[in-house]
Amino acid sequence: MKIITRNEGISIKRSVDSGTEEQRKIVKDIIEQVKNNGDEALKAYTEKFDRVQLTNLAVTESEIEEAYSQVSEEIIEIIKEAAQNIRSFHEKQLRNSWITTEKNGTVLGQKITPLDSVGVYVPGGTAAYPSSVLMNVVPAQVAGVERIVMVSPPGESGTLPAGVLVAAKEAGVKKIYKVGGAQAIAALAYGTESIQPVDKITGPGNIFVALAKREVFGDVDIDMIAGPSEIAVLADDTARANEIAADLLSQAEHDTRACSVLVTPSRQLAEAVSLEVEKQLETLPRKSIAAQSIADYGVIYVTETVAEAIETINELAPEHLEIMMEHAMEKVGQIRHAGAIFVGRYSSEPVGDYFAGPNHVLPTNGTARFSSPLNVDDFQKKSSIIMYSEQAFNENSEKIAKFARLEGLEAHARAIEARKQD
Amino acid sequence: MKIITRNEGISIKRSVDSGTEEQRKIVKDIIEQVKNNGDEALKAYTEKFDRVQLTNLAVTESEIEEAYSQVSEEIIEIIKEAAQNIRSFHEKQLRNSWITTEKNGTVLGQKITPLDSVGVYVPGGTAAYPSSVLMNVVPAQVAGVERIVMVSPPGESGTLPAGVLVAAKEAGVKKIYKVGGAQAIAALAYGTESIQPVDKITGPGNIFVALAKREVFGDVDIDMIAGPSEIAVLADDTARANEIAADLLSQAEHDTRACSVLVTPSRQLAEAVSLEVEKQLETLPRKSIAAQSIADYGVIYVTETVAEAIETINELAPEHLEIMMEHAMEKVGQIRHAGAIFVGRYSSEPVGDYFAGPNHVLPTNGTARFSSPLNVDDFQKKSSIIMYSEQAFNENSEKIAKFARLEGLEAHARAIEARKQD
Repeated sequence: MKIITRNEGISIKRSVDSGTEEQRKIVKDIIEQVKNNGDEALKAYTEKFDRVQLTNLAVTESEIEEAYSQVSEEIIEIIKEAAQNIRSFHEKQLRNSWITTEKNGTVLGQKITPLDSVGVYVPGGTAAYPSSVLMNVVPAQVAGVERIVMVSPPGESGTLPAGVLVAAKEAGVKKIYKVGGAQAIAALAYGTESIQPVDKITGPGNIFVALAKREVFGDVDIDMIAGPSEIAVLADDTARANEIAADLLSQAEHDTRACSVLVTPSRQLAEAVSLEVEKQLETLPRKSIAAQSIADYGVIYVTETVAEAIETINELAPEHLEIMMEHAMEKVGQIRHAGAIFVGRYSSEPVGDYFAGPNHVLPTNGTARFSSPLNVDDFQKKSSIIMYSEQAFNENSEKIAKFARLEGLEAHARAIEARKQD
Repeated sequence: MKIITRNEGISIKRSVDSGTEEQRKIVKDIIEQVKNNGDEALKAYTEKFDRVQLTNLAVTESEIEEAYSQVSEEIIEIIKEAAQNIRSFHEKQLRNSWITTEKNGTVLGQKITPLDSVGVYVPGGTAAYPSSVLMNVVPAQVAGVERIVMVSPPGESGTLPAGVLVAAKEAGVKKIYKVGGAQAIAALAYGTESIQPVDKITGPGNIFVALAKREVFGDVDIDMIAGPSEIAVLADDTARANEIAADLLSQAEHDTRACSVLVTPSRQLAEAVSLEVEKQLETLPRKSIAAQSIADYGVIYVTETVAEAIETINELAPEHLEIMMEHAMEKVGQIRHAGAIFVGRYSSEPVGDYFAGPNHVLPTNGTARFSSPLNVDDFQKKSSIIMYSEQAFNENSEKIAKFARLEGLEAHARAIEARKQD
């Protein structure tokens, strides 16, 4: 792995794929087709892109039973426990509607209401992750969303992976449709004969899915457009090189465009980790992906001080941050930007990817500067409540009318004065 | 005003302007120019679009003093009181970082952090509203954002409206720049010599501003893209026709594309309001705007029942909702979708536009189905905290490794097992 010092200039290269003009055009065409031709268009695209002819897009109860029979009892139990941990962490995020009352009769507040409906996209192929199903569905369910549907492209046999179906059932999805790509996003946004439209679409996907989400945004809400996954490890001499290397590689195996970074004031640790990465790479099943990712986007920064290392992390605003330092928890207060912060030696990133409870859908590509992990707030919305009593009105009506006239809005002032005339 | 019954079909027409291809191209060009040429491009566009040559983009202290001398003591006091009401309401939204701890040593939580920097766009011309400054800036300030800058296009005299400058100062803005349009959005997103880039851009603007915000979204965060303003009044026979008419017209005077709707089970009230609207229109200074808006987008729905009226409101998901019915507060629980709910006779919409405290930046065009009023959460972000102890790790490591292997991610499993080997 490349080792550089901070004064050689911080330049983390991250991959952003915003699509080509041609891809955008394809996506627009697909959305138009689905709007106009509904299920017929969905089936035609499924035949074209997924190479399978479907008569029925909805997953049946018997397909779900079949999935359960294909997954071991032990794995089902692990999925249940993970779902329970995720549910428990997200339940702690629930907020109440609240009001504030004043003696003059004023009542102000926020009413919290779940979205009516959410659609979760689950990618197909090798990236079909049951954990992704749990992480997207459970927060929506905890938020109180009544209608949660899932879409995912079928394999060539016309089915979805057993683990994905089991996770969907355990998470509480009511309806699953075998459709993927931009056509699935269009169906969720605008509806077809068999798929009712939803209010928000979440979940990762390929570039066509990302472009389609961007296109329908506004008509429905979307979660973030995720880039390749990233990890930054902040470590000092108390950390172990083999553990850091293993964690960097667990990120690198995701994607040739994944980004793995170590920031440390210890040159000795930097060199040890660099060697360990090369060594551990050798025996990885996904060696070619991980090696490419490390070569293109892997870097070790050696800083002069711990403070400089922390500032480097804040400049990066990484998706995942591991702090493997003495008194790691004491460093958290200095971290301004990170999607998830893994504190201490035993908090290896996969702990959070699958099991601990916090969400693994996290802001990438520096967007942790302004974005949050997927959470219950993403599936609820607020309405302001404003109630003025006659007394409160009389105390303030003149001021309100004056403010309106300052802005040149006479009808606003008259709306206030209409109440005063009797 | 048109009166129709619900079984004639609910078809509220709302105006959505998503821009032309040519406008998009202009915006892309402007952004490119600002990226490449910085302040020079800003000054050139300001000369072209705002017809004023500026040597210095930043508003000076003496310009602010001048603004104070132009606004009456009384208006300054009203602005201060409004700012204080808005601050007080938004302070109640503040959330704490939180953790949950388990006996096995696990610590999980959410760390809440304000954004580093926010840019507020304030439109120029006749739509230069001091209230808009307060509503955008105060929540950011309450959230703890350290750097809040404001941009607004200068008038032909090279200055900004006095009311806007006073509101900015009272709200706590530190830096104000005289630049507007897509060029201002580009400067906020990417920075120039005199304007440092920000993490999030909020505030309304014309179609070029809206398109520019959409274009930079992802590189920085943005608030919603607002459409024309809307009001829906839900009323029964206890409401007064002249007050409802005045409220509908206060919305209609904003914009020829604004949308004003009354939903009522009372045909008698419907007819009385229709007559009142025509009558009150006659003497309005902004009569031509309001009349056009009422003609194009105004409608009165007469329903069979109260329940049907409420269902109509939920289908509309209006930006502003006034409930002028007997026992109005008891109806709030049935409202699923509305930006702000004004309860009872004395809660005329302008009460909330300027003064009461809740935000007047609200979701339009049905997006109240999934969006919220601008609020403190919009200026903070969350980071997950995950700390596993050795005990917690040992209790769960096998399950985590198995889940990783279920997903075919061997390096994830090995990252866990690297901790177990010693």
